Amino acid sequence: MAPDAPTAPPEPERALTRRRLLLGGAAAGAGAAVLVGADALLNGRPTGSADPGGDARLNGAETVPFHGVRQAGVETPPQAHAKFVAVDLAEDAGAGQVRRLLTLLSDDAAKLTQGRAALADSEPELAVVPARLTVTFGFGSGLVERVAPEAVPTWLRPLPEFATDRLRDEWSGGDLLLQICADDPLTVAHAARMLAKDVRAFGGVRWVQDGFRRAYGSEAAGTTMRNLMGQVDGTVNLAPGTDDFERLVWGSDGHPAWLRGGTGVVVRRIAMDLDAWDRLDRPGREEAVGRRLADGAPLTGGGEHDEPDFGALTPLGFPRIAEYAHIRRARSEDPDERFFRRAYNYDLPVTGADGQDAGLVFVSYQADADRQFVPIQRRLDELDLLNEWVSPIGSAVFAIPPGCAEGGFVGETLFAD
Amino acid sequence: MAPDAPTAPPEPERALTRRRLLLGGAAAGAGAAVLVGADALLNGRPTGSADPGGDARLNGAETVPFHGVRQAGVETPPQAHAKFVAVDLAEDAGAGQVRRLLTLLSDDAAKLTQGRAALADSEPELAVVPARLTVTFGFGSGLVERVAPEAVPTWLRPLPEFATDRLRDEWSGGDLLLQICADDPLTVAHAARMLAKDVRAFGGVRWVQDGFRRAYGSEAAGTTMRNLMGQVDGTVNLAPGTDDFERLVWGSDGHPAWLRGGTGVVVRRIAMDLDAWDRLDRPGREEAVGRRLADGAPLTGGGEHDEPDFGALTPLGFPRIAEYAHIRRARSEDPDERFFRRAYNYDLPVTGADGQDAGLVFVSYQADADRQFVPIQRRLDELDLLNEWVSPIGSAVFAIPPGCAEGGFVGETLFAD
Repeated sequence: MAPDAPTAPPEPERALTRRRLLLGGAAAGAGAAVLVGADALLNGRPTGSADPGGDARLNGAETVPFHGVRQAGVETPPQAHAKFVAVDLAEDAGAGQVRRLLTLLSDDAAKLTQGRAALADSEPELAVVPARLTVTFGFGSGLVERVAPEAVPTWLRPLPEFATDRLRDEWSGGDLLLQICADDPLTVAHAARMLAKDVRAFGGVRWVQDGFRRAYGSEAAGTTMRNLMGQVDGTVNLAPGTDDFERLVWGSDGHPAWLRGGTGVVVRRIAMDLDAWDRLDRPGREEAVGRRLADGAPLTGGGEHDEPDFGALTPLGFPRIAEYAHIRRARSEDPDERFFRRAYNYDLPVTGADGQDAGLVFVSYQADADRQFVPIQRRLDELDLLNEWVSPIGSAVFAIPPGCAEGGFVGETLFAD
Repeated sequence: MAPDAPTAPPEPERALTRRRLLLGGAAAGAGAAVLVGADALLNGRPTGSADPGGDARLNGAETVPFHGVRQAGVETPPQAHAKFVAVDLAEDAGAGQVRRLLTLLSDDAAKLTQGRAALADSEPELAVVPARLTVTFGFGSGLVERVAPEAVPTWLRPLPEFATDRLRDEWSGGDLLLQICADDPLTVAHAARMLAKDVRAFGGVRWVQDGFRRAYGSEAAGTTMRNLMGQVDGTVNLAPGTDDFERLVWGSDGHPAWLRGGTGVVVRRIAMDLDAWDRLDRPGREEAVGRRLADGAPLTGGGEHDEPDFGALTPLGFPRIAEYAHIRRARSEDPDERFFRRAYNYDLPVTGADGQDAGLVFVSYQADADRQFVPIQRRLDELDLLNEWVSPIGSAVFAIPPGCAEGGFVGETLFAD
């Protein structure tokens, strides 16, 4: 082989990188060692640029641990990009096949999230930018029934029908959910492709939903997201690390044994009629939500995170935050009727002169969807001015099993008996 | 109004931000003043996070000038996200309407790229993160003919048919191109929506193509992109600022007067059969391209940016870089047959068990597509092993008019006579 180019990294790093790539990640050791490899590749590649950007640590090299008591991707601060992939298992896929599938997927997810190539990675060079990649597995009742039919949580079933639902089969249900999130869209595309290949022998892809938030580096960390209607979306939310979060998201009351350390997720595709929304003026929009558009503060004043004063009246004696306002309807008197939201915007390219295919991939984590999510959704279904402009077109519920240790696989507790 | 939350920014910044937002950007002055506003909003919003990330300048606040002799978005280092929107003008839209449309679009693009709300912005809060937003206008022959039928450049027409083309109407042609690029996907979505609304009275959207590269902050600046086949894509490229770039991209030989200071663009949608590509091993892939997958270096050695040795032979006497290899076919003896590539990956969510809808939005800028692009594409069409796995499914050619000064509009030179 000809001598290396003058800008190539020093030999040891380069050798590590090259060996790692040739072996598809199999030669890589612990996480720390892999990061060195990724860094070398990222920072050391000849670029033709005067500034190879070596001053700060690149976000692309950041990793979130895959192994642990709980799965990543729930408490993880939301990454910029998400792909939600729902899988239908083949009719004849029994417990043994489910186990093999989950082993395969866990193994590849463990590698990919750490910036290493998947086992049979066809494009290992695309795996070297983890960019906080997480892969979170959710089990539909169809999967649990094949392994432990007696251990399906009561809430693991389709949500009850709501009057405002316009659900489509193509966006609903599924036996297995892969929630793939990272700050880099190419990382998400590559991981999704590798995991979808693992699935092929065991079933097919039922639906895929792509979502985005503000890019990494666009806004200060912790800024509440805005949706495509321009609203600050998700101000009142459970905060990871709090007692409420532990109880309402990770709590195991009533969970079958295999789910302890896990939680549940609701994924709903909420289409927005942005053209109709356009016809509403700003005061009308603020009334509909109950918050100021500019900063997300309640119409009764203060800052975004201040409590709304639901008792406040206008000079004419009407409630300052209307009865039909979203934030009033979304709030229950029962403090247990809460969940943790982690939503993404979607905006698919539409060919042709008319309309838009945009909205929100609503994602909420809670220990028990029946007790925590359904009552709130019922309140919104009955009365919420926002229903004029949004329609749920997809809905699915999954159990999020606990995480696994190195060498294990997500879902192993299902097979414990 | 209730007192602000303790984490709220000091009053003056807050007042500026609030006033600007309430007035939909109309009250904002010069670019610098706006940036202060955007910064205040970005850095000063209550976050509930311990670290509001105030240390470094946020990439979201970065702007690229809209006004200038040349349009932005050509030499601009490629942003992470792109949306290519092709517009069909209404049949009865004449020169006067085209002029009004371009005035409207230029005005909104000038605002949005500087982090200000569009004139009739329905979600002004989504405009405050420019993230290097550029909007680049391209004119199809259908637009030019309506204004100055005698001044259509000879090359402004559909490319000749190539044997490997599998073109679909839905991805081809168009009277007007809007190339919308930014490092933030929400910024792109918002800008595209505002500009599409401007278009409505004058025509309809013909096609939309979304593309992505590595996220901002993922990799060192200047790293050559990889496509979804895992290849380093675009190593041999014209470099902005060089004499070759000036001549081959911005050169005006044979251009009608209105196009001086402009260039031309070819946008082709190249579908990849990734499943078939998977069945090819690494040596096979490297042979097909003529470069190493690991680092993009030519198979004859060296680094990514070293010259391939097309005369080198294997011990058996075969060319080291095969006759059918992409890099050999893509290179002409004629140094004028070159162009500037600025491509994006695409990967649309596919519902259903089969396949993928992924590939490359190939984008090349050149002064004369007939002289610079067509000969190369003909060579590739005749013989290029890569044709086994890629198919052009969309094709369009646009003239990129020069930029405009403040108060002007892109395309004004078309109306000069």
